[in-house]
Amino acid sequence: MTTEQGSKSPEFQESPKSEFVAKLERRWQQGNFVCVGLDSEYSQIPQIVRNQGSIEQAMFKFNREIVDATHDLVCAYKPNSAFYEAQGDQGLRALARTIAHIKDQYPDIPVILDAKRADIGNTNLGYVKAAFDELGADAITVHPYLGKEALKPFLDRADKGIIVLARTSNPGAGEFQDLTVGEKQEPLYQVVARRVAESWNDNGNCALVVGATYPKELAEVRGIVGNMPILLPGIGAQGGEVEATVTAGKDSRGWGMIINSSRGIIFASKGEDFADAARKATESLREEINRYR
Amino acid sequence: MTTEQGSKSPEFQESPKSEFVAKLERRWQQGNFVCVGLDSEYSQIPQIVRNQGSIEQAMFKFNREIVDATHDLVCAYKPNSAFYEAQGDQGLRALARTIAHIKDQYPDIPVILDAKRADIGNTNLGYVKAAFDELGADAITVHPYLGKEALKPFLDRADKGIIVLARTSNPGAGEFQDLTVGEKQEPLYQVVARRVAESWNDNGNCALVVGATYPKELAEVRGIVGNMPILLPGIGAQGGEVEATVTAGKDSRGWGMIINSSRGIIFASKGEDFADAARKATESLREEINRYR
Repeated sequence: MTTEQGSKSPEFQESPKSEFVAKLERRWQQGNFVCVGLDSEYSQIPQIVRNQGSIEQAMFKFNREIVDATHDLVCAYKPNSAFYEAQGDQGLRALARTIAHIKDQYPDIPVILDAKRADIGNTNLGYVKAAFDELGADAITVHPYLGKEALKPFLDRADKGIIVLARTSNPGAGEFQDLTVGEKQEPLYQVVARRVAESWNDNGNCALVVGATYPKELAEVRGIVGNMPILLPGIGAQGGEVEATVTAGKDSRGWGMIINSSRGIIFASKGEDFADAARKATESLREEINRYR
Repeated sequence: MTTEQGSKSPEFQESPKSEFVAKLERRWQQGNFVCVGLDSEYSQIPQIVRNQGSIEQAMFKFNREIVDATHDLVCAYKPNSAFYEAQGDQGLRALARTIAHIKDQYPDIPVILDAKRADIGNTNLGYVKAAFDELGADAITVHPYLGKEALKPFLDRADKGIIVLARTSNPGAGEFQDLTVGEKQEPLYQVVARRVAESWNDNGNCALVVGATYPKELAEVRGIVGNMPILLPGIGAQGGEVEATVTAGKDSRGWGMIINSSRGIIFASKGEDFADAARKATESLREEINRYR
């Protein structure tokens, strides 16, 4: 069935490939599909780390230890901007230092800035500059609502990854995303997935977000988008199951998945052993993914 | 017709009213409908201001002079976060100082942070904290795509304004927003407007974004949402016309409009007289709005 899906959509596979996608593929080749979500909410960081310095120091040190403990097991890191913005200047400096550390020590691992941005036209140049040029992220998540024309400043960045929300992992995702559209009565999230695959991806730099909490919808999207990478949040704390996710989410090569776990990894232990616990949780998820791939 | 619109939807008008909406109404009562968009892109700030100090100083000083020159003529200020984020720490400090200046000198004027945020569930608490508690904004713009359930942390802030994108001002806005959905085959932007008015607005703190570039769509939305405030970007540089916008956008009281102009006001002159020119442009737009109201 996966081969059929691949052969149904050869046009997507002929497109050029961004450096972001190339990096991902090298990680997938090594059996790495786990994305560690660095949702490092300050109040949840182990007390022992928080006791050692400023908010900036604590957030950075926590992230650095998690990264150093897991770098050989992952396909990507994904800090969510909200947790850093919540801490003002200090949080943003911790975010910048975290990305710099990954770029410096593990340049083969792409960093996805989960910022869910999207404004109109040239206003997006500000977000492009902030995410890619200032912070040095390899990819960013964006909302689809304003359309391709608005997102051009993102899509023009052929070197980066532009990860478009299609079917999100939250319980209420269906309010608009499941509305049936047009003559074909397709759900909106499928229309978004199809538009991104067929019309937005001239630079081979697009990917999609589909919640691991919705394996049925994930299978539909995979059927539409060929081998396009899909970021799959919602494993673990949010209830997504690995077997169903991998079965529905893998592409024709058994790749194509960026399987994110945040709290299940980074807060696996709230004690001194948090980095070891993060490694164990990552190893365990990595094995489980490869078992079903 | 406007009276009919009002009477069609009494339930929206019975809802409580957020402090943000109350502030707006006091400004509207004085004939103030102009929102000055502080899209203060650093490279566009007059050379004479840029020569006087750091990026932070230049952005803040520019904004402060614009605000001081226009405060008696406006219903709101709307800095767009992208232009500040593009300048890293310095830009974000300029943004914080700009909002602090408005709050300090002109506490009656609401500040809308145009940040177009939206993540899932508790992650949004980070954005809520950053926008409302750290920066002190009175309102924020958000994407609707993830649904009401995801946006709860925003919607729970009964004191603030939550301004949801419905029909945006960009040329390609229709790619998804105009898709006809559901049994009624309504365009998506109308479904969003209806859901926000009927289901999201328990705290009387919701508003919508509809581009002034689309007066027909604006009239449809006004017909759906009763007296809910509508933020109208796109006047001036983007081509929106005042008469059409006011005719389509006013509510049953001749109010309900937050009519944004950014470049047409703040960059009305690139010379030393930029603040005077901004005042003149604001006065002129204010008069034109009131002529058609």
